[in-house]
Amino acid sequence: MSSEQSLTERLLNGEPRAVARAITKVESGANGAAALMKEVFPRTGNALVIGVTGSPGAGKSSLVDKLALFYREGGERIGIICVDPSSPFSGGAILGDRIRMQTLGLDKNVFIRSMATRGNLGGLARATVDAVAILDAAGFEKVIVETVGVGQDEVEIVKTADVSVVVLVPGMGDDIQAIKAGIMEIGDVFVINKADREGVLRTEKELEALLSLAHRPDFWNSPIVKTVATENRGIEDLAKAIESYYEFQRKGENLERRKAIAKWRLLELLQEKLLADVLNRNGTSEKLERLAQEIAEKRNNPYSAVEEILK
Amino acid sequence: MSSEQSLTERLLNGEPRAVARAITKVESGANGAAALMKEVFPRTGNALVIGVTGSPGAGKSSLVDKLALFYREGGERIGIICVDPSSPFSGGAILGDRIRMQTLGLDKNVFIRSMATRGNLGGLARATVDAVAILDAAGFEKVIVETVGVGQDEVEIVKTADVSVVVLVPGMGDDIQAIKAGIMEIGDVFVINKADREGVLRTEKELEALLSLAHRPDFWNSPIVKTVATENRGIEDLAKAIESYYEFQRKGENLERRKAIAKWRLLELLQEKLLADVLNRNGTSEKLERLAQEIAEKRNNPYSAVEEILK
Repeated sequence: MSSEQSLTERLLNGEPRAVARAITKVESGANGAAALMKEVFPRTGNALVIGVTGSPGAGKSSLVDKLALFYREGGERIGIICVDPSSPFSGGAILGDRIRMQTLGLDKNVFIRSMATRGNLGGLARATVDAVAILDAAGFEKVIVETVGVGQDEVEIVKTADVSVVVLVPGMGDDIQAIKAGIMEIGDVFVINKADREGVLRTEKELEALLSLAHRPDFWNSPIVKTVATENRGIEDLAKAIESYYEFQRKGENLERRKAIAKWRLLELLQEKLLADVLNRNGTSEKLERLAQEIAEKRNNPYSAVEEILK
Repeated sequence: MSSEQSLTERLLNGEPRAVARAITKVESGANGAAALMKEVFPRTGNALVIGVTGSPGAGKSSLVDKLALFYREGGERIGIICVDPSSPFSGGAILGDRIRMQTLGLDKNVFIRSMATRGNLGGLARATVDAVAILDAAGFEKVIVETVGVGQDEVEIVKTADVSVVVLVPGMGDDIQAIKAGIMEIGDVFVINKADREGVLRTEKELEALLSLAHRPDFWNSPIVKTVATENRGIEDLAKAIESYYEFQRKGENLERRKAIAKWRLLELLQEKLLADVLNRNGTSEKLERLAQEIAEKRNNPYSAVEEILK
């Protein structure tokens, strides 16, 4: 038995340390990550995967924590993946983890992990869906993927969940930006958090108006749930709304959606693999440094440089 | 003379229609895009490129419009690129363009373009920096890149600008999310927009506290500018703050920063090219459809599927 196999076995038995090691492996694209995922993949499909997104400041973290506690009371094991954007040039800081560990982190049935760094090879989205698959295979009944940003990558990640939750706060619905942010169309369930604040009714009306304009291919009417996460209010309603969409889509034919996700995932992985193969060639990284220097000094351009790398 | 050459010539003469066609070309990755960019690249470096990001609802569009009008009054030509996230599976709607064209779009010296769709090949970030280079080569003195989302892609794009502006609103600074969103470290200039609202002083104090913790390698102290974009207040202060950072960094040694940007750009382009080469092979798209179907039905896994494509 290789240590690789025993990692997979321990992972499939749900051992938190094996889960953590496996996620690190897929995150860093280490040797053996592909072999691991090939074993993990057939064991997935049992977890309910919930994606949570929304504007910064909407209180997503509190909401996710309270939802996780609610599921815990039902005796379930919960995985939380927090997708944290970080800067491409420096790295970026993660404050969230340390703070959250104080409330949830001592519970062995709650696994919390931040996915932050995107390396040169891209792959944050790919690493996140792999991490979700690992938690799924490890027997976590609920996996919550929370994104911090509201960008392209985050939207892609949330769309791979079984149920996507979009979190808003009162007073933001009046702004066209909220529509433009492209998150309206992805919500299976909408939450107006901080619902003890002024302007809830207005935000709710505006959201209803927007949703009535949207036409979903599956004819689902996205429910709007009002919560005050910090006071634990509305969490049960949220769990019910999530469950009701999950039931709804299980009845329907969702093979097309799963196929679209599979295709996207395949392309992400393919792109990453192709780039890694080129960068691992002897001399490529020196060449890359030299060409970047030439471009910075305007003695070369990126298009000619790429041709030179591939020559 | 081929029509390709004449497009480049007309572009370098600053003709708006040639600029629009050239951007479409690089956006779609059409034939000739690489040849075009090789000619464009040596002509860049004259524009001041301003990146603007911040939370949805912060009023970025109004601020960008007012800043553009301010520069117009100085007789300059302005390019505005609006990076709009869209969903990977459906496409997503663009409302912004149509609305903005009513205020700025009739002025021939203002060029407005949304970059929205990211295709299968990725490349939104790459297409955006190429579009900026085209506007630069076409003689636009100021190019403003505005992002709608606050995600990984958006942060990367804004970091390639000469001056990055982060827009906040009163009452959001008290939330840890704002820090976690990873946008604090990229601001060369901070704006508190909607500064006629309650809580400005508190947000300013909190922002100052956060900035005092940050350590920039260039020792720049990011100024905080208060604006009310809808009433055109504070716009001149913002322009001054932008100018002062631009002057500051021109004096300093910023070759390292330019090299980091060049390297990132090179990797983006390389990845796109490698994937396109594989997908353009005969039979790959049929294979991709079949494999996606198999994965959706759990008869295959993405890792084995990628190996099959590359076999």
